[in-house]
Amino acid sequence: MIIVGELINASRKAIGAAIEAGDAEYIKQVAKEQDEAGTTYIDANAGIFVGEEAKYMKWLVELIQSVSDKPIALDSPDPKVIEEGLALCKATPMLNSISLEKDRWDKLLPVVAGNTDLKVVALCMSDDGMPTSCDDRLKIADKLVSGLTGKGVSIDNIYVDPLVQPLGTDHTFGVEFVNAVKAIADKFPGVHFMCGLSNISYGLPARKFINRIFMAQCISAGLDGAIMNPLDKGMMATIAAAEALAGKDKSSIRYLKAYRKGIVEA
Amino acid sequence: MIIVGELINASRKAIGAAIEAGDAEYIKQVAKEQDEAGTTYIDANAGIFVGEEAKYMKWLVELIQSVSDKPIALDSPDPKVIEEGLALCKATPMLNSISLEKDRWDKLLPVVAGNTDLKVVALCMSDDGMPTSCDDRLKIADKLVSGLTGKGVSIDNIYVDPLVQPLGTDHTFGVEFVNAVKAIADKFPGVHFMCGLSNISYGLPARKFINRIFMAQCISAGLDGAIMNPLDKGMMATIAAAEALAGKDKSSIRYLKAYRKGIVEA
Repeated sequence: MIIVGELINASRKAIGAAIEAGDAEYIKQVAKEQDEAGTTYIDANAGIFVGEEAKYMKWLVELIQSVSDKPIALDSPDPKVIEEGLALCKATPMLNSISLEKDRWDKLLPVVAGNTDLKVVALCMSDDGMPTSCDDRLKIADKLVSGLTGKGVSIDNIYVDPLVQPLGTDHTFGVEFVNAVKAIADKFPGVHFMCGLSNISYGLPARKFINRIFMAQCISAGLDGAIMNPLDKGMMATIAAAEALAGKDKSSIRYLKAYRKGIVEA
Repeated sequence: MIIVGELINASRKAIGAAIEAGDAEYIKQVAKEQDEAGTTYIDANAGIFVGEEAKYMKWLVELIQSVSDKPIALDSPDPKVIEEGLALCKATPMLNSISLEKDRWDKLLPVVAGNTDLKVVALCMSDDGMPTSCDDRLKIADKLVSGLTGKGVSIDNIYVDPLVQPLGTDHTFGVEFVNAVKAIADKFPGVHFMCGLSNISYGLPARKFINRIFMAQCISAGLDGAIMNPLDKGMMATIAAAEALAGKDKSSIRYLKAYRKGIVEA
């Protein structure tokens, strides 16, 4: 599983406050904790600071890199912020995210097109609104993948986000998402996924529980990446078990390691 | 989800002892508990008592029916035991199970063929041994389903058990089973499933946790029945969430009911 640790996001109260106060130690601590919990990437987002986003993004990137070798997910729709962040990244980062919305697509494509190593999250969203069915998602993913590969981005560097919608809004929103993962994986062999799953449980009780069950189903359908809290032990344990059950963990080595680390509750 | 409550099985120590001691109250209590926990069927198995199985099966059926209206799953490979049990059943029972093993098939088919209402568990096992791949299972299921429908059993009364094998033995055993559920559901529209999932975690730590994650994945693939312990709240909660996520619970009514009953841990 490719995990993007989501915690360093300015829209989270503690992080927004730490950025404003220049509290470098807190940012470094959160970066370190996510690293140690086994995240693959560390997300950096300073989106709430209009006009100062690039400055804070650079600050975040440097702080994260001072305590962790993990690559960074540059989380912004602004090409200037992405480019300034990119210039500082030591390990190949992930761009989070491009979409089919014309303004975002036009502005970010030149950044992506000029960078063959960059990993790109391709969000299934267009100016026609948000997809709800499997077919909606497949159509947008089709345009995103062909648009990106047409600009020289290799399929292996594309991380499709099929966009989770809340089950509480419509009872088909879980199964349509799962079917979309399956359909996209079948249609574009080698493509990866990246998405936040927690929106699925919006408005329902016991959200963490639902999120975990949904993760298990999505992994079974082919999901290989998620932006999430890597300190959530229950979710990390779910991923370990779900991947073993999906045939992706020979001799259950990673599951047994997770068990020995104490994150699986018996 | 069609749940067969598995607890009244003579191979379980407490039940074996209760049968030997003629402890009717204990059997009735276990029947009642499963009924109240929401089981669809109540399994009755007296298999360890060679030569006396039919006698005890009848005793179990009568005791169960004295406290519950739920139909019974007659759990025996012996046609005589099944027939004697059948004669007592008030609600249409489930026969658990026929298989492609020649002796079992030949002996049980006449019982099934003469009874158009009976629900039949068709276990994917043949004299060639136990299936391990999706293809193995599909081939056996094909013969079972066509053999049964050829004798007038309607597809809606067939409950295929694709036979879970332990993940600890081979890392593909989870995904091959899940793929078999999908393939069998696709090939035989209207067919049902019935199986015990707990074998998946044999030899691994935190078995209950693995079983639940596997249940979530199997439900996503189309599994609609299981023989299990309905008193296992964590598993019942998993089923409620997994079915809602699979689009089988409009307005999440059953999930919300399970939450209000207190079986979902937040």
